[in-house]
Amino acid sequence: MGTVGIVGLGLIGGSLGLALKQAKLGGIEVAGFDQDSRVGGRAHSAGAVDRVAPTIERLASDSDLLIIATPILSVRKVMEEVAPHLRRGAVVTDTASTKGSVMRWAREILPREVNFIGGHPLAGKETSGPQAAEASLFTDRPYVIVPMTDSAPAAVNGMVGLARIIGARPVFLDADEHDSYTASISHMPLLASVALFSLVRGSQAWPELANIAGPAFRDLTRLASGQPEMAHDICLTNRENIVHWIDRYMEEIYRLRDLVQNAEGDEDLFRAFVEAQLARDSFMDHLPERDPPGSMMTEVPTSNDAFMTLVAGGYLAQRAKDVTNLFEENERERNERERRQRRRD
Amino acid sequence: MGTVGIVGLGLIGGSLGLALKQAKLGGIEVAGFDQDSRVGGRAHSAGAVDRVAPTIERLASDSDLLIIATPILSVRKVMEEVAPHLRRGAVVTDTASTKGSVMRWAREILPREVNFIGGHPLAGKETSGPQAAEASLFTDRPYVIVPMTDSAPAAVNGMVGLARIIGARPVFLDADEHDSYTASISHMPLLASVALFSLVRGSQAWPELANIAGPAFRDLTRLASGQPEMAHDICLTNRENIVHWIDRYMEEIYRLRDLVQNAEGDEDLFRAFVEAQLARDSFMDHLPERDPPGSMMTEVPTSNDAFMTLVAGGYLAQRAKDVTNLFEENERERNERERRQRRRD
Repeated sequence: MGTVGIVGLGLIGGSLGLALKQAKLGGIEVAGFDQDSRVGGRAHSAGAVDRVAPTIERLASDSDLLIIATPILSVRKVMEEVAPHLRRGAVVTDTASTKGSVMRWAREILPREVNFIGGHPLAGKETSGPQAAEASLFTDRPYVIVPMTDSAPAAVNGMVGLARIIGARPVFLDADEHDSYTASISHMPLLASVALFSLVRGSQAWPELANIAGPAFRDLTRLASGQPEMAHDICLTNRENIVHWIDRYMEEIYRLRDLVQNAEGDEDLFRAFVEAQLARDSFMDHLPERDPPGSMMTEVPTSNDAFMTLVAGGYLAQRAKDVTNLFEENERERNERERRQRRRD
Repeated sequence: MGTVGIVGLGLIGGSLGLALKQAKLGGIEVAGFDQDSRVGGRAHSAGAVDRVAPTIERLASDSDLLIIATPILSVRKVMEEVAPHLRRGAVVTDTASTKGSVMRWAREILPREVNFIGGHPLAGKETSGPQAAEASLFTDRPYVIVPMTDSAPAAVNGMVGLARIIGARPVFLDADEHDSYTASISHMPLLASVALFSLVRGSQAWPELANIAGPAFRDLTRLASGQPEMAHDICLTNRENIVHWIDRYMEEIYRLRDLVQNAEGDEDLFRAFVEAQLARDSFMDHLPERDPPGSMMTEVPTSNDAFMTLVAGGYLAQRAKDVTNLFEENERERNERERRQRRRD
């Protein structure tokens, strides 16, 4: 019997539970914890978890795979709470929308004998909370996996298995790539959406504007209805990338503004619209090819095998060896450092 | 038997035809014309029109209500083509996304004995052409009606009837209000959407970005897939309002950029997100009250009556009297002018 533990049973945590349970994996139980016990109760009633753990420490000590699905700024505190209780060889992952800070916290806080692998399922909707959770939330969505440089292949493969089991497309990125990329396709657009809504909402003509606003305005301002905590935490943990992309966005808008301002008989403005239309239609039709995936991808046996191995034993034996090696290495390093230190003193 | 004529049988013209036919109004036929005869044929096969007129002139001379549903910059040419053939007392309307130019052209080109009333159903989708047409396109959407200062009440009421029959919400605005309002909720957002897509598409990392782009990026860039002709014509006929709103949008983005840049312990950024969320959720929940509608609204008997009266007679008798009065007035004015002129010479 292996245990997947989920900390935070809102939209993402709850949906992960539902998707895992829907996969009907024999020998795996899904346990959960939420600091709001009503949320935990609701997730249990909805069938997102087999049981709710009485404490976060207890969930940590029970879990072979622990998924931290809390708001970003809470991830650090959760890591501190679970760190002393994690099993040797356990795998820990998260679902945060930014990865730089989370990876840094994991290196600082989590014990070396557990394997942290960053995760970010690019799914979500404007409604949040456990009542919005659904098993199909991740279907065909990208699931970014951010291994540490020393992550055990079996743990990485297990994460690929997790992504596939819930119907998502695993994508490997490092933390810097992830935070730069998501700034452009997600975080800057979030601010653009909030800016559009706030601007129009602040107009004196708002009652008139609201009454003639069509689907375009609704779609483009959708992200303004997202969770404020999430938006805030994203901005605080990915500030430089976001500011960089906002600046580039303003340059691009200014370019179009000039085309509009100066459009006469010339075709520049029309060409800009044609090019955008062709390129977007092509994007909606099929995704562009990425560079060939790294070697890690080719090692993945099948999704279920890798995931089951990760959560339900097997991996533990292999990991125990990795961990022993690592400890011996660390031990040697420390002795070496101390020797050097003594010589210098 | 009354005839509704539709010039241009693409997404909007075709959907208008389908919606009118679905209403099964006895004694009304829907005729159409498209400069592309294949589009006309397709609209006829799809049941959007009862018949396709052999020429635009013929459609004009047959129609009690003529709806011009072409791209904006073609509206002028269509007006010139139909003007000599329109029936006395006919009502002419359009569906263009900007109203200032169209109203000016109507005053310049159309004969005084027809009644032009501007129209703009705020509906649409990213797919265009007759194959995208659907009867439900206008359901619960605003339909802006822009009367001339001298529009006959019966003609205005008929337009309200048209809007209601196809399931839309009639909204009265003047041309300046319309163009300023739509610049903020539709035209500037269109450019923001194109800018976002073009910027991200132009990134060297595009293959990676496309593969992790989630529903947010798709929703926010949806307008970039719209018809380039439409976007172009909108920009050319509503330039000043659009540039004004782009400038305000850039200011608002810059305000958020500064909040992100400087966010520390303070709550300004978080508050901005909370306020946007509350206000947008409230907007999605219910539309704000507008000022009480003008007296014109209160004269509307029932939708079908007003529309039937407009298209299928009744109105013609009343209108004939209005027209005679107008002609007599014009005649008196001309005589007066000529007399003054002669005295000065």
